[in-house]
Amino acid sequence: MTTRLERAQEIAGSKGIDTLVITPGADLRYLTGYAALPLERLTCLILPTNGEPTLVVPALEKSAAAASGISFEIVSWAETDNPFALVARLVGSARTIGIDDHMWASRAFALAKAMPAANQVLAGSVVQELRIRKDQAEIDSLREAGAAIDRVHRQVAQWLRPGRTEREVGADIARAIVEEGHETVDFVIVGSGPNGASPHHELSDRVIESGDPVVVDIGGTMPSGYCSDSTRNYLAGGEAPADYVKAYAILADAQSAQRAYARPGVTAESVDSVGRDIIAAAGYGEQFMHRTGHGIGQETHEEPYIVAGNTLILEEGMAFSIEPGIYLEGLYGARIEDIVVCTADGIECFNNTPRELLHVEV
Amino acid sequence: MTTRLERAQEIAGSKGIDTLVITPGADLRYLTGYAALPLERLTCLILPTNGEPTLVVPALEKSAAAASGISFEIVSWAETDNPFALVARLVGSARTIGIDDHMWASRAFALAKAMPAANQVLAGSVVQELRIRKDQAEIDSLREAGAAIDRVHRQVAQWLRPGRTEREVGADIARAIVEEGHETVDFVIVGSGPNGASPHHELSDRVIESGDPVVVDIGGTMPSGYCSDSTRNYLAGGEAPADYVKAYAILADAQSAQRAYARPGVTAESVDSVGRDIIAAAGYGEQFMHRTGHGIGQETHEEPYIVAGNTLILEEGMAFSIEPGIYLEGLYGARIEDIVVCTADGIECFNNTPRELLHVEV
Repeated sequence: MTTRLERAQEIAGSKGIDTLVITPGADLRYLTGYAALPLERLTCLILPTNGEPTLVVPALEKSAAAASGISFEIVSWAETDNPFALVARLVGSARTIGIDDHMWASRAFALAKAMPAANQVLAGSVVQELRIRKDQAEIDSLREAGAAIDRVHRQVAQWLRPGRTEREVGADIARAIVEEGHETVDFVIVGSGPNGASPHHELSDRVIESGDPVVVDIGGTMPSGYCSDSTRNYLAGGEAPADYVKAYAILADAQSAQRAYARPGVTAESVDSVGRDIIAAAGYGEQFMHRTGHGIGQETHEEPYIVAGNTLILEEGMAFSIEPGIYLEGLYGARIEDIVVCTADGIECFNNTPRELLHVEV
Repeated sequence: MTTRLERAQEIAGSKGIDTLVITPGADLRYLTGYAALPLERLTCLILPTNGEPTLVVPALEKSAAAASGISFEIVSWAETDNPFALVARLVGSARTIGIDDHMWASRAFALAKAMPAANQVLAGSVVQELRIRKDQAEIDSLREAGAAIDRVHRQVAQWLRPGRTEREVGADIARAIVEEGHETVDFVIVGSGPNGASPHHELSDRVIESGDPVVVDIGGTMPSGYCSDSTRNYLAGGEAPADYVKAYAILADAQSAQRAYARPGVTAESVDSVGRDIIAAAGYGEQFMHRTGHGIGQETHEEPYIVAGNTLILEEGMAFSIEPGIYLEGLYGARIEDIVVCTADGIECFNNTPRELLHVEV
């Protein structure tokens, strides 16, 4: 079986890159399995297009790196060594160096100084070509993550009570995210009433009132390293405002149409426009001011982005969110979000709790 | 009063920088108070040496940025705009651009493409000159963080019982870190027996045995944004091994000597060598393989680093850890860590729990 490292070498070669230099982050973890911490001391994978990989680590991290199952050479540097000189020696005469898209500028500058004859290009597209198509194990991990966050959404109604603050409800949700199998809580958005009209509102001390529509957008990272992300909408007792009910019906139609439409062979931007057209036709175009979705895997937000201008053609194994929203400033907002993956001829949806507005009995 | 932004402009000007471009992270938070999330959508502060600052944010984040108390202009970009073209327009004719040390390489490349006539230099040293000297409010915040982590260390003995795993003990500690006032848990190291010999070991399923020396190194971030970090050593019942007791006494002497020595006017590296000499003279030089310490503030690890080769002269307001260690591979390790700040003529120590080996009654 061709390993991820071998496939990265092949793609890098086809792009004229001689050596990849990958610092801690999702790309390093994807290629090597090593979830290195983002420390001030330099850790990096050196992957020549023709040759053997080397992992450069600070001496303090050598045992952690070895314990992560790295099967190739690990070279460590001592506390007073210059790690960039070490990297330059290991890279040797390579001319075109593909650096990690998320490498710190200070490190890119230090590498350029240590290798003045080399030419730096971005390596992100190399690893992205691999990461954007999930293999079976990754799909299984995303399905498991989706089921875990669904189990949390099924419990939200019991915590979401008028008189409690968003922050109190959020604390209960955060605890459940971990109890249901996530290793970390990545975000907890409880946007009640007018706070729901700000898509990236997180938590506040606002007291939830009866009749408030509430946006609950939550996610975490599983022990597998793969992420969950799902949004549902709740009504904390009382009656939903009529204009909200009307907008919600349009939103649910749009999200449903996008799920029915998304499949291999269509462009990322067309998935966006299928939903946006429905929302705009109903007069809410200005109130849906963000893209439809983002890819997901070891990062909550990664390629492919489901956004106007992205002409990427979807393929089997691509996983992303479908999450249109309608935001009525100063009043309330709604967003419905599922994570899906392209199958051979359609999609599989990893989030399967009811999508209608959930009336909480109080 | 001169603001941090004004002082950064002054320092940038003295370094020949025309405009600073600062992306989310500790520097942005320090300069503006805005704790922006590290999103894939570009957020940055544009700070001309002569002129008014502008914060560039994705439209989705505009309300969060405004809520953080930014008092200068916020310019937002819509989902399908090119934010780098916007930054280029706002930067205008500036020639020398000081970019954030932690800016992603992909963004540095995109800025270079959008501003082909400009010359990029690193801006880190500009903000670092400010951040390295804590003002009174920052010192108060670090003192509060130190007291909070001390309250956690005072409870560790009750959880650290033979028969429990490091992970179980770590979960209790993590909960207490939050209960004692931290907003986030940054790290929990419980290194029992041989695991203590790996300085950056975190948690494992190893069952703690009677007579195991255990290194407990813990820290979090307070609502103020400032960090705590303190290491103490525990004996989980039984008798400490004789060679460990001997090494521990040397370590405690070294750490005590370093605290007595550190003050304004001495170099960072001399604080390191004062402790290293004592440890080396006792024959453990090879077993103290890391630097003595790191600065601390809004990041757990920042300047000044207390390490050989760092000839920086300490000044009033500089805050850092003093944390020598001795690691006997395959057996056990010990590290004693306090956070201190330089006062006018000495140091104030923010961690004040007993430093001797704490025998847990079981």
